[in-house]
Amino acid sequence: MAQLRPVFYISDGTGITAETIGHSLLTQFTDTQFIGERISFVDSVERAREAANRIRTAAEIHSARPIVINSCMDADVSETLAESGALMLDVFAPFIEPLERELDESRQRHVGRAHAIVDFDTYHRRINAMNYALAHDDGAAIDYSDADVILVAVSRAGKTPTCVYLALHYGVRAANYPLTEEDLEQDRLPPRLRQYRDKLFGLTIDPVRLQQIRQERRPNSRYAQLETCRREVTQAEALFRAERIPTQSTTHTSIEEIASKVLSTLGIRREMF
Amino acid sequence: MAQLRPVFYISDGTGITAETIGHSLLTQFTDTQFIGERISFVDSVERAREAANRIRTAAEIHSARPIVINSCMDADVSETLAESGALMLDVFAPFIEPLERELDESRQRHVGRAHAIVDFDTYHRRINAMNYALAHDDGAAIDYSDADVILVAVSRAGKTPTCVYLALHYGVRAANYPLTEEDLEQDRLPPRLRQYRDKLFGLTIDPVRLQQIRQERRPNSRYAQLETCRREVTQAEALFRAERIPTQSTTHTSIEEIASKVLSTLGIRREMF
Repeated sequence: MAQLRPVFYISDGTGITAETIGHSLLTQFTDTQFIGERISFVDSVERAREAANRIRTAAEIHSARPIVINSCMDADVSETLAESGALMLDVFAPFIEPLERELDESRQRHVGRAHAIVDFDTYHRRINAMNYALAHDDGAAIDYSDADVILVAVSRAGKTPTCVYLALHYGVRAANYPLTEEDLEQDRLPPRLRQYRDKLFGLTIDPVRLQQIRQERRPNSRYAQLETCRREVTQAEALFRAERIPTQSTTHTSIEEIASKVLSTLGIRREMF
Repeated sequence: MAQLRPVFYISDGTGITAETIGHSLLTQFTDTQFIGERISFVDSVERAREAANRIRTAAEIHSARPIVINSCMDADVSETLAESGALMLDVFAPFIEPLERELDESRQRHVGRAHAIVDFDTYHRRINAMNYALAHDDGAAIDYSDADVILVAVSRAGKTPTCVYLALHYGVRAANYPLTEEDLEQDRLPPRLRQYRDKLFGLTIDPVRLQQIRQERRPNSRYAQLETCRREVTQAEALFRAERIPTQSTTHTSIEEIASKVLSTLGIRREMF
């Protein structure tokens, strides 16, 4: 039986860095079952004491030493957390000294800086990309000329979440073209897309999975029939092949993975938010 | 003058973990200017060699030793990357040994696991939350009973990006209520919101910033006038105070920070995607 182990992601900011690296580390240990809790904005010794109390309580409840994934900058805060008796993993500590030596520069201990607004222009680009994705969702757009990428797929294959993710995390203007039955009966790209060939990326999906998703949306419709899903997916895949559009199946692929594939395939270079 | 320093985020998966911790680390060094590049899906020695070549080229172009933030699991891949001569920072290495000792378990080197789909139910909850946020955007919803949280604010104060972020990263069903002029003329909560008091979170914003955002959307409208923005924000803030709704200003706050505040204030506990 898997042992239960409490894990705390503790940060003086949002906790996103601590939780991201913590999840990545813990997925490498499969015999243990982890119960995670995030404590964000721990920016004073007072709050660190409260957090340490929660850690101690979890240790008692689960009769197991908790693990703390810590990204707090302040040494007193980290020390107070350590008094809880948990295994402390400081996500920055091992890298600071090599970086200071390499850069010949001391680090600045700015609390909560990693996921704060850095500059307004960049932030503005992000919000605009987001608005763009929402406004150009599911073929509502007439003009694709501003798009960085146009995701092409049959209905419910995963276009919208990918577009929104690309906008939110990379500031990429991602539009979205749903292949209609009429489009699929042609062997060629819909005319509106032809001039944007190098921005196109096709998504495909297992027809059985597509059927499940559509069934939830419009139960017992023709749209949700397995036969319809099979035909549409086959036609879409044939079209992508014929037009040499790069594709990715979304069936066993997370939004993060699809977004990464789109960026690396189309050679779009953007820093991540 | 700031020195230019090339940084590579290299991963056998999406690169999100490497880039997240890398950004957090580098924001602590303010005298150096970093030029970041992501190389994802480096899952073979062959690809590692290509990456090492790109690193060497960058070293020549910038006459500076590159920094590699590496999250690849395979030892041969990491060794090949190291042959580039860059400063190698392995984001997992320092934590594996203490975790193995604490958990009495060896880690599994699953390539690209961190941001892959872990289980379908969880993933499904995420996509549904996303669809929920989009369907319940800007008051389109009539029924808020399914919501985990309802963000309340005047138009363009930051509700939509926050809702989408909460859905994408925490699987939280976040709805969105835009305060209309009619709502604002009352001193009380709009009737539709009264029964959901404990799900409400108010967003506010500096009127000058709001004016800029609205001006971009509908230039020279009454909606975008500074006077309109001032009046609406003042009325909204008064309403939040009177009804004791927790609030956060979005003016200098990133989407990540707002989302974290919402979760910690309302006590919503969800693991992050």
